[in-house]
Amino acid sequence: MQKKTAAVVVIGNEILSGRTLDKNTNFIAQALTHKGIRMVEARVVPDDRDLIVEAVNLMRERYDYVFTTGGIGPTHDDITADAIAHAYGVSLHKHPQAYDALLGYYKDESKLNDARLKMAYLPEGSELIENQITGAPGFRLGNVYVMAGVPKIMQAMMESLLPSLEGGIKIYSISIKTTLVESQIAETLRIMQESCDDVEIGSYPSFVEGNRQVAAVLRGPDKLELEKLSSQLQDNFKELGGEILEVAEI
Amino acid sequence: MQKKTAAVVVIGNEILSGRTLDKNTNFIAQALTHKGIRMVEARVVPDDRDLIVEAVNLMRERYDYVFTTGGIGPTHDDITADAIAHAYGVSLHKHPQAYDALLGYYKDESKLNDARLKMAYLPEGSELIENQITGAPGFRLGNVYVMAGVPKIMQAMMESLLPSLEGGIKIYSISIKTTLVESQIAETLRIMQESCDDVEIGSYPSFVEGNRQVAAVLRGPDKLELEKLSSQLQDNFKELGGEILEVAEI
Repeated sequence: MQKKTAAVVVIGNEILSGRTLDKNTNFIAQALTHKGIRMVEARVVPDDRDLIVEAVNLMRERYDYVFTTGGIGPTHDDITADAIAHAYGVSLHKHPQAYDALLGYYKDESKLNDARLKMAYLPEGSELIENQITGAPGFRLGNVYVMAGVPKIMQAMMESLLPSLEGGIKIYSISIKTTLVESQIAETLRIMQESCDDVEIGSYPSFVEGNRQVAAVLRGPDKLELEKLSSQLQDNFKELGGEILEVAEI
Repeated sequence: MQKKTAAVVVIGNEILSGRTLDKNTNFIAQALTHKGIRMVEARVVPDDRDLIVEAVNLMRERYDYVFTTGGIGPTHDDITADAIAHAYGVSLHKHPQAYDALLGYYKDESKLNDARLKMAYLPEGSELIENQITGAPGFRLGNVYVMAGVPKIMQAMMESLLPSLEGGIKIYSISIKTTLVESQIAETLRIMQESCDDVEIGSYPSFVEGNRQVAAVLRGPDKLELEKLSSQLQDNFKELGGEILEVAEI
């Protein structure tokens, strides 16, 4: 099985102004990790065609999958379909299934005002991504998956497209939380990392109710190896005077 | 007064694996918006020197300010200082003030093990960014501000450096929430946007307890103009049968 990689392009001024906290990247990251696909980059760009095109074109060359969120609704600032068409050098056309989906949602042709009809125009060659919540369709063109920005809708879209993605090597993860601080465990982690090529060792300090703690995280394809390293680390942390607060396998 | 622009580069595998939800970009975005500085892009990159260098070098050319978060601690996966040195083509050297700060924090030279000492090595030409919470110093080199990934520390660093940033044109914002759906207000917003060059009009749908609502957001430098447009929109939404749920000035 091969490694599979991905990137996310979040589209929306509201994220960059601080109005909205982006939670979509995290949701997509978790879904991909579970599937053995590695998210290598994420970008947030404004509602600006040139910046969207630049990000999408670079990411789709570089990674197996690209997921975008935001900008597929009916308003003037929803320019994602247009930008994706530009990125691929194709035109927007009225997509029959997208039109049918909108008609199914609004029931009556007379309700399809210009703003709503706009959502039926997708880049040539697109396939729909199902949206069971509103009329705005998501779509896939090549390796680019275009989804809504509203988390509830994006999540439904992601769930519906996940089975179609080819997964990569499943990566397991073990997290070991201890009462020590990072600089006490740094040497142990460094030496362990140097002897393990296919395990990625990270260290994440945090404050919990004013107390410092740190999580060492082991990630890799070989679960047995991770478990062996995990028990080595736990022994080592205890030798250093640390308490093991939690060991979690993901 | 000139426009000022910024970008954020979030550094960390834990964000891309979905282990951690990034809240730092949102905090920085809000702080910058308040200061009249526009965040134009944000990127998340892994603990990989080449990808960090690529992002930082592009962003520092393109925007007035670049803020990075993550990777400044004592462990082997903390490679931000090294990457920034590479981006600028300078060496790491033992920074006297960073050393003093670490010594102040750990009190005793014998406690400065290799991992802790590593944090005193900063790119040549760097200035410290104060960290009142732990020993790990942040730093500025050119227009790049390097901060911690732990939100509490990052926030303290951001607060301490904010007064030194030259602010841009203050941008006001009015948000009008209504019970209508996006496709009902799209035409109104589009026409208004076409007649206002210096106002940015956005539209953000959401679900609240199963009910759909939408916020129209006006952003621009002229508060009086925004207030005039806001009352026009409110009248228009009422004519369309909508209820005004909230008008918020930011």
